[in-house]
Amino acid sequence: MKVITIIGLGLIGGSVARDLRRTGFASSIIGVEQSSQHAATALQLGLVEEVLPLQEAVAQSDVVVLAIPVNAIATMLQPVLSLLPEKAILIDFGSTKGLLCEQVRNHAKRQQYVAAHPIAGTENSGPTAALEGLYAGKTNIVCERELSSDAAMAVAMELFEALGLQTVFMDPEAHDKHLAYISHLSHISSFVLSMTVLNVEKEEKDIFALAGSGFASTVRLAKSSPAMWAPIFEQNSTYLNNALEEYITLLKDFQQHLHNRNSDKLCKMMEEANKIRPVLEGKSQ
Amino acid sequence: MKVITIIGLGLIGGSVARDLRRTGFASSIIGVEQSSQHAATALQLGLVEEVLPLQEAVAQSDVVVLAIPVNAIATMLQPVLSLLPEKAILIDFGSTKGLLCEQVRNHAKRQQYVAAHPIAGTENSGPTAALEGLYAGKTNIVCERELSSDAAMAVAMELFEALGLQTVFMDPEAHDKHLAYISHLSHISSFVLSMTVLNVEKEEKDIFALAGSGFASTVRLAKSSPAMWAPIFEQNSTYLNNALEEYITLLKDFQQHLHNRNSDKLCKMMEEANKIRPVLEGKSQ
Repeated sequence: MKVITIIGLGLIGGSVARDLRRTGFASSIIGVEQSSQHAATALQLGLVEEVLPLQEAVAQSDVVVLAIPVNAIATMLQPVLSLLPEKAILIDFGSTKGLLCEQVRNHAKRQQYVAAHPIAGTENSGPTAALEGLYAGKTNIVCERELSSDAAMAVAMELFEALGLQTVFMDPEAHDKHLAYISHLSHISSFVLSMTVLNVEKEEKDIFALAGSGFASTVRLAKSSPAMWAPIFEQNSTYLNNALEEYITLLKDFQQHLHNRNSDKLCKMMEEANKIRPVLEGKSQ
Repeated sequence: MKVITIIGLGLIGGSVARDLRRTGFASSIIGVEQSSQHAATALQLGLVEEVLPLQEAVAQSDVVVLAIPVNAIATMLQPVLSLLPEKAILIDFGSTKGLLCEQVRNHAKRQQYVAAHPIAGTENSGPTAALEGLYAGKTNIVCERELSSDAAMAVAMELFEALGLQTVFMDPEAHDKHLAYISHLSHISSFVLSMTVLNVEKEEKDIFALAGSGFASTVRLAKSSPAMWAPIFEQNSTYLNNALEEYITLLKDFQQHLHNRNSDKLCKMMEEANKIRPVLEGKSQ
């Protein structure tokens, strides 16, 4: 049983708290939270036993989890690692890995740090969005495992297992490239689809009553938190820019075939797209 | 109780058959189906009592439903209307309305025709995809109601109510414009997102194991049938071209802000997009 500090008591950190308590991994859970409103809500919901200032919390912890937006992780990763007690470990749950790994690659306490990304979430945010079982059966990517000590990895793996995560290993650049396509790009396509439709339909709100479940599914991610996603997009801007460029190019191809009423080419593109079906098998919600 | 002919025994027509039988609206249901494989499956599933040639089926029907891709509706609407017995009615379930309404606006039997679009479906197709209750609680758009006779409208409304549809009225141009944004564009964004990701990840299929439920939700529509959607896109190409143009322009704006690391503008765009949340309330699957 471990003393855990969770920095950031939103959807991600709050869900971690729920499962580490439920599974008995944590003997006690301390929160660090800059929003006094979120702190109060987290205490009220019983996500954490107490909310303490950063230094005080870290000093008494076995495990510290960073569950804040990736720009805030970039700011806090080095100082928190410096504060870490000798036998404690630090895990970040950020959705980018390149910049973060680079920042602490030569840090004196690098081996006490585990760079993780559990691929789980919902379009909701804040402590009230925290869910039991959010991580169950989901994939977790750990980067630069070889730079973490065996002891730190052992504790981290125990924590990941308590959450029900299945862990794979990858280098940070591969992580950021793949995530640009399979996660970040779909968020942008959804945000921008929402804007496009709201723009044209703003005079006629009733029109949304006509939207089917397909529209709801495609724009679901447009409800996601800008404060969380802007820093992810910025930290992954190189790969994401490539992904966006390819997406826009293919959209223009589609538009051109449509303009030319070229059914064959439209159908060919859609048949290519259909190949996602077997890939998604078992992945629908 | 009526004798119904359903032309096209796929997802749409097959689901109509299930509910018109269940609710007792139909005394018997005849299918017209050009694919002998679909015809055999529909008979085996009990969707229809018999499959007959077009003329023979229409001649003995009270209600004929056209549930085929919109290019096939465009080909068959006039000839089927011409074949219609004096007291029978014809309803089409096509996802476009402009061209179809125009085709028969001056037809001698125009008043026996009701131009409908029930906004319901799934990404699956064929008779095995037919679902009981597919239309329950969904919106149905009827265009140019004033050109249908009161008698025809009365029968059609009874049929729509048997399916559980809520009917609204709209002119065909307004229908096609709105659908371009709230349905057709989201299909294209999803098809093209699927292609983009499959292209870059084709060497590494395992990577899809990393995709979360957000990706699955955003690309769900990419599984849709090209044979159904290519003709919809083509018939609605003018409005859809505008919608695509606006979508691509906003994507480029987003890309530019990303390139400039302009967090404020990225956040502003996402906050605009977030306004879809109240709109979608009660629309999630």
